[in-house]
Amino acid sequence: MDNVPYKTYLTENELPDAWYNVRADMKKKPAPLLNPATLKPVTAEELEHVFCKECVRQELDNDTPFIPIPDAVRDFYRMYRPSPLVRAYFLEKALGTPAKIYYKFEGNNTSGSHKLNSAIAQAYYAKAQGLTDVTTETGAGQWGTALSMGSAFFGLKCHVYMVKCSYEQKPFRREVMRTYGADVTPSPSMTTDIGRLINQEHPGTTGSLGCAISEAVETALKLPNARYLLGSVLNQVCLHQSIIGLETKAALDKLGVKPDVIIGCAGGGSNLAGLMAPFMGEKLRGENDYRIIAIEPASCPSLTRGRYAYDFCDTGRVCPLAKMYTLGANFIPSASHAGGLRYHGMSSLISELYDQKMLEAKSVEQSKVFEAATLFARTEGTLPAPESSHAIRAAIDEALRCKEEGREETIVFGLTGTGYFDMTAYAKFNDGEMGDVIPTDEDLAAGFALLPKV
Amino acid sequence: MDNVPYKTYLTENELPDAWYNVRADMKKKPAPLLNPATLKPVTAEELEHVFCKECVRQELDNDTPFIPIPDAVRDFYRMYRPSPLVRAYFLEKALGTPAKIYYKFEGNNTSGSHKLNSAIAQAYYAKAQGLTDVTTETGAGQWGTALSMGSAFFGLKCHVYMVKCSYEQKPFRREVMRTYGADVTPSPSMTTDIGRLINQEHPGTTGSLGCAISEAVETALKLPNARYLLGSVLNQVCLHQSIIGLETKAALDKLGVKPDVIIGCAGGGSNLAGLMAPFMGEKLRGENDYRIIAIEPASCPSLTRGRYAYDFCDTGRVCPLAKMYTLGANFIPSASHAGGLRYHGMSSLISELYDQKMLEAKSVEQSKVFEAATLFARTEGTLPAPESSHAIRAAIDEALRCKEEGREETIVFGLTGTGYFDMTAYAKFNDGEMGDVIPTDEDLAAGFALLPKV
Repeated sequence: MDNVPYKTYLTENELPDAWYNVRADMKKKPAPLLNPATLKPVTAEELEHVFCKECVRQELDNDTPFIPIPDAVRDFYRMYRPSPLVRAYFLEKALGTPAKIYYKFEGNNTSGSHKLNSAIAQAYYAKAQGLTDVTTETGAGQWGTALSMGSAFFGLKCHVYMVKCSYEQKPFRREVMRTYGADVTPSPSMTTDIGRLINQEHPGTTGSLGCAISEAVETALKLPNARYLLGSVLNQVCLHQSIIGLETKAALDKLGVKPDVIIGCAGGGSNLAGLMAPFMGEKLRGENDYRIIAIEPASCPSLTRGRYAYDFCDTGRVCPLAKMYTLGANFIPSASHAGGLRYHGMSSLISELYDQKMLEAKSVEQSKVFEAATLFARTEGTLPAPESSHAIRAAIDEALRCKEEGREETIVFGLTGTGYFDMTAYAKFNDGEMGDVIPTDEDLAAGFALLPKV
Repeated sequence: MDNVPYKTYLTENELPDAWYNVRADMKKKPAPLLNPATLKPVTAEELEHVFCKECVRQELDNDTPFIPIPDAVRDFYRMYRPSPLVRAYFLEKALGTPAKIYYKFEGNNTSGSHKLNSAIAQAYYAKAQGLTDVTTETGAGQWGTALSMGSAFFGLKCHVYMVKCSYEQKPFRREVMRTYGADVTPSPSMTTDIGRLINQEHPGTTGSLGCAISEAVETALKLPNARYLLGSVLNQVCLHQSIIGLETKAALDKLGVKPDVIIGCAGGGSNLAGLMAPFMGEKLRGENDYRIIAIEPASCPSLTRGRYAYDFCDTGRVCPLAKMYTLGANFIPSASHAGGLRYHGMSSLISELYDQKMLEAKSVEQSKVFEAATLFARTEGTLPAPESSHAIRAAIDEALRCKEEGREETIVFGLTGTGYFDMTAYAKFNDGEMGDVIPTDEDLAAGFALLPKV
C-alpha cells in the first residue's frame, strides 16, 4: 500500500459551487438540435414546450464555462456528495498489475447511480418554474428512481415510462419509485397514442428508451402543467454530471496524482461526459493530455459501429433531431441486461468530441463484463451495476496491458452505480446462461437506411 | 442550518484500532453460557467444536477493555469505513422539531448493513485457523450477504441457511450471496436432521432464525473443516460492532456534541450493543449519563414482554443455553417483514444491562414503522431497511416529544441498513395491505411454558 487512502473524500465545503460547461472550451461546438418539422435549428421558445425554461437555457449555452449550482440543489447534494474516489488496492493485487486503479463511486445513494446529480437539478428548475408534474422515461431504472427522489423532495408528481424489459426484469425498481410517490408505466403502453401505435406495429416488443421517451414527451404535452425531463444525452445533463469529474479532479489534485487513462461506460453518455469534463477541458485548451475511453456494449455499439448523422432522439419522432453517432432511431437492441446502455444514439457532445478524435471508443461483450463484475465484487466488496461493469471490464483490460508492458499507469474509471436491482441478470450469469447478442451488419444497415435525410 | 456538516467522516487514520469490550466495565457481568447437557458454564474447549478459536476467546473475555483489530480486518474496513455520521437536517425540518437528529449510517456497503463489521472479522479468524468452510444462518439476508462477502475475500466456502419466509420474499438477496460464491438453502430444509424434524412437526412453517441456526450448526459439525459463525446475539459480535459506537463517539466529540438520547433497533442486539458501547461504558463508569433505548417490533417483543431466563439459542437445542430476555426458543413470530428482528431472544449482554436498568426498551408496530420509513426516504433520500426503520420511528417520536416540550435535545440513532431488498414489504405498505400481527398473552405463555428449568 502506498500513502493514498482507500477512499478520498472532499469536504462538503469543497463541493464545487458551479458546473463546468465543456462546450465553452470547444472550438467546434456540438451540432445544434433541429426542429423536426422545419429541419432548422430549434429555438429556445420551441424547446420550452417540452423542457423547463432554465434547462433549455443551459441546453443552448455553448459559451459560459461555469454555471452556478443553486443553493437548494447544493444542499441536496450534501446528503450524498462529495462521493468517494476509491483506490482499488485489492483489485490491483488480484490482477498483479503495476497500474494504479482508481474509481469514482457514484452508487452511494438510493437511486444507485450518478443520475441523481441531474435529477435533483432538473426537479429544482421544474419546481422553480411553478410546474406540478414531470414526466420521464427510464431504462435500467436508475434515472426513474433518481427523478422520483428529486420530485418527492420538491413536491412534484412524477410519471415514469419504464422500458418494458426492465420493468419485467426489475420488479423492485418500480416499487422504489412508487415509495417515492411516482407512477410507473411499462413502455410501450396503451396509455399514449405513440405507445398504442408501437404496440400495434411491433406486437410483443420489449421496448426501448426511444419508445419510452416518445410516450413521456406525449404525456408532458397533454398534462396541464408539466414538462418532460431527460436523464442523459442532452447537453444540460452532461453539464450537471460535470460534478463527477470536478470532484474527481479535485481529489486527484489533492493526492498529487495525474491520471493517464480515464474510462467511462457510455449509453446516452452523461456519466462519461461528466467524469471526463475537466480533463477534456484541459485537453481542449492544450494544457494536458489524457487517454479518454468510452465503453459501450457490443449489443448496442453506437460509437464504434454507428453513423455520425442527424437522427431522431425518440422512436415516435416527437423530439428535436440531434447530430450524433447513432444506430438509427428504430434500432431496438437485444434485451441485454445493461438497460442503461441500450440507447440507439450517443450525446451530441460526446459524438462531436469523438469525431474530433478527442476520445477513444471500445465495445465489450456482456459475458466478459459480468466476469469483470464478479471479480470486482469479490475483491473490492461493492456489487457493481451491469452498466458500470463495462467500465470495470475496460479498466481491468488496461491494467492487464500495463502488467504485460510493465507500465505503472494511473487508470481512473467511473463506477456509476450498484447492481442491487440487477440480480436477474446476475442470476443468468451465475447459472451460466448469459449469452452475447451482437447485431449483424445487416441489422445495422436496416437502421441506417431509415436515417432522416438532413 | 448550523455549522455541523450533513455528513461527518473520520479519516481512515482515525479508524479505531481496537474494539471496545463493554463487559470489562460491568460490575455484574452477563450470565455465562451453559452446556445444554451438563447445565454448567460452557468451557472454551466445548465452544471450540462449534466456533472459531479466537472468537471463543473473545466470547469468554469479560475483562479486557480493548481488543486489537487485526491489520487485515482493518484494511478491509477501509474499503467502506469509517461510515458517515449524518445530521438529518431535512427530517428535522419536516417534523418542525427543535431536536437535533443524527444517524450513524451503516448501509453504504453491499451487505447493506452493519453486519459486515463482524463478518469480516469472523471470516478472518476462520481463515487464520486454517478452516476451509463456514456455515451460518440469515434472516433478512444482510448477515448472510456479509458473510458471503467476507468468505469470498478470504477464500472460504460459505454455506448459508436462510429463513424460508425471507428466502421467498427476497429472491435477489440469495442471488447476491451466490454472486459472492455462497450456497444458499431455505430453512427449515430437508438437508439436515433438525430441518427434516422441524418440517415434519410444523408442515408449511415459514421458518425462524432459531431453526436456521440449528441447521447451520449441524452442518458445521458434519463438514470436515468447518465452523459455525453467528451474526448477532453473542458477546464477540457485540464486541466487533463496537466499531459503530467508537466512530460515532469520535465524530460527535469532533463536532463538540453530546447526545441526550441514543436509539437502536434490536433483534439479536448486536447493532444496538455496538452503537451504544462507548456511551454505555461512560455510563457504567459514572462519567456521563445518556438515555439509551432499544427498539423492537411489537410482533417479536423479547425485551418488553419476554422473560429474563436461561433459554436455548436455537430451536434444535444444539447450541449452549444463554440467559437472556426471551419469548422461548419455540416462539415463531408472524411473517413480519423485519426479518432481522425476528429472533426469540436478546443478547445476554443487552439483557443483563436492561435488567440493570441501564437502558430502556420500546416496541413499535410495523405499519407505523413503514410510515416513518417512507417519510425518511422522501426527506433524507435514503430508503431504509425495515429493521433500521424501527429506530427511525422511535427517533421521530422522540423528536416530536421534544417539539411538544420545546426541548432542543440531541438524538442519535443507528441507521443499520438499506431496504433495497425489502421491496416486497414496501409494496405491501404502498398497496395499503400491511397489517400488524401482535402476539397475544396466550401466545407468549405457550412459549414461556417451554423454557428450560435451570
